[in-house]
Amino acid sequence: MAEKQLDDLFLDTLKDIYYAERQILKALPKMAKAAMSPDLKAGFEQHLAETEVQVERLQQVFELLGKPARGKTCDAILGIIEEGKEIMDEYKGTQALDAGLVSAAQAVEHYEIARYGTLATWAKQLGHKEVLALLLETLKEEEATDQKLTTLAKTAVNLKAAA
Amino acid sequence: MAEKQLDDLFLDTLKDIYYAERQILKALPKMAKAAMSPDLKAGFEQHLAETEVQVERLQQVFELLGKPARGKTCDAILGIIEEGKEIMDEYKGTQALDAGLVSAAQAVEHYEIARYGTLATWAKQLGHKEVLALLLETLKEEEATDQKLTTLAKTAVNLKAAA
Repeated sequence: MAEKQLDDLFLDTLKDIYYAERQILKALPKMAKAAMSPDLKAGFEQHLAETEVQVERLQQVFELLGKPARGKTCDAILGIIEEGKEIMDEYKGTQALDAGLVSAAQAVEHYEIARYGTLATWAKQLGHKEVLALLLETLKEEEATDQKLTTLAKTAVNLKAAA
Repeated sequence: MAEKQLDDLFLDTLKDIYYAERQILKALPKMAKAAMSPDLKAGFEQHLAETEVQVERLQQVFELLGKPARGKTCDAILGIIEEGKEIMDEYKGTQALDAGLVSAAQAVEHYEIARYGTLATWAKQLGHKEVLALLLETLKEEEATDQKLTTLAKTAVNLKAAA
């Protein structure tokens, strides 16, 4: 009984991040299009390709668990993406736009890092070894993306905005 | 001109996190009340006291910038907190509740880490030294809180749920 409850929470959270990843898939091309710096544009495009693989990995996770791959509305990612849209509208055509895009992207990354971190902990506790390996692979990618964004924020992007 | 634009983005993001912190102030007592594990309950109560100081620090930041301390609706934190409420409702009375509470709290922490990290980068670029010191102090606390939650997730809280 008790085990089943953590299983439920695990599955609910998988559905949450599956929905979130697919929202991110829709948002990234818009962010790439809006970015002024070629480095940032390339970064978003690369992360879009990575996100496609991450969605596939989640589908493998559902399969390993014997559950259909289904999303569940994730209010958190909707709010985070909405804030990103506001920045794109309000700072369109300004030197600060790229700084704002990096900021929005880092809020997305941190949401994913929190969720995949939690899921990995639970997968380990529930003894889902193959699932754990898939989740950790994505977690590592999200952390690397966040690091790249931090480097961009500290160098080209914002310095241009403050120049 | 260009400098003013990053200043604007900085101020908008300060208002965002100021609003978010005050929402977190309202959510934490509910999470502390819901938590079953005494360690988790104590952790939320301690973080509530810390959050009160973090709100005061933001008020100091606004003062240093010569701006009124005002919040701006933050859809991201509203979504994150809403998901936490859903977990509290759906897992009330189950062994998995605490695991869900930790997960919700880590999503909150990661949002704050993203925002304070961005703000600190911009404060440095804009030459706001005193403001930077205040932001870094809070950032360090948020990172420490996230670490504590990870430890709780890996030990008592979830193991109980999976037992």
